[in-house]
Amino acid sequence: MKKRRLDTLEQAERAFYDAFEAADLEAMMAAWSLDHDIVCIHPHGPRLVGPVEVREGWRQILGHSPRMTFSISELNTIQGDDLAVRLVTENILMDDEARTEFIVLATNVYRRSAEGWHLILHHASPSPESIVETETSEEERDGDDVTIH
Amino acid sequence: MKKRRLDTLEQAERAFYDAFEAADLEAMMAAWSLDHDIVCIHPHGPRLVGPVEVREGWRQILGHSPRMTFSISELNTIQGDDLAVRLVTENILMDDEARTEFIVLATNVYRRSAEGWHLILHHASPSPESIVETETSEEERDGDDVTIH
Repeated sequence: MKKRRLDTLEQAERAFYDAFEAADLEAMMAAWSLDHDIVCIHPHGPRLVGPVEVREGWRQILGHSPRMTFSISELNTIQGDDLAVRLVTENILMDDEARTEFIVLATNVYRRSAEGWHLILHHASPSPESIVETETSEEERDGDDVTIH
Repeated sequence: MKKRRLDTLEQAERAFYDAFEAADLEAMMAAWSLDHDIVCIHPHGPRLVGPVEVREGWRQILGHSPRMTFSISELNTIQGDDLAVRLVTENILMDDEARTEFIVLATNVYRRSAEGWHLILHHASPSPESIVETETSEEERDGDDVTIH
């Protein structure tokens, strides 16, 4: 698949979340850099490194989740010349019977190449607010993990 | 407190983890940038934004945790001109009766100023490997959260 040209950070981020919402694996990977050192950490997940692991992670998520609607709010962009870090909050509404809502804190790092801006890192963590709203057990928020680090 | 000069990324990262291990709040904040937009996400935690929230987060952690020994392994550095992203794995040994070990995946972003490199973002998530090793309940790893995103 030819790398889609993404001239601005906003286009790059839009391409990423549009692909996520559409559950379109090819569009998702087109939003990522072709570099070997791309990294993705999904909530509660391990660190996926390189195109093969990152793609497999998305294949599982996009193939097995109910449809999702995203509302993205951006906290901040840390902008360098060819590197940019965007801090966003993902409000995710699942199209399941329970209409579950998740809030995810994401750090998205983009690198600029001749083809424009593409994702090189997605690090996502569940927001504690989200954990309260969903049906997750109390044990998930046990004190040890919170205070240690 | 005068901002400590940290000429290299390695010095900056060493200053951060040395302060963490020593539970030294002033040294910890000296490893951070003075910018208003610094951000810190501790495992399972909310997004702390700005010097006041970031400092208060560290004050709670450094003041209430048992002593910790860190072993840091670096996966990769994404280097820009004045911005750098370091992906590290923190192996944390708690000096408590259970000698608990935690594995944390951290994304550390540094910015270069006239005083050298300082931390502007620390985003940390528990590694799933760590969750298996500790006494956390099975519910914490329930399928919904893992597969959704």
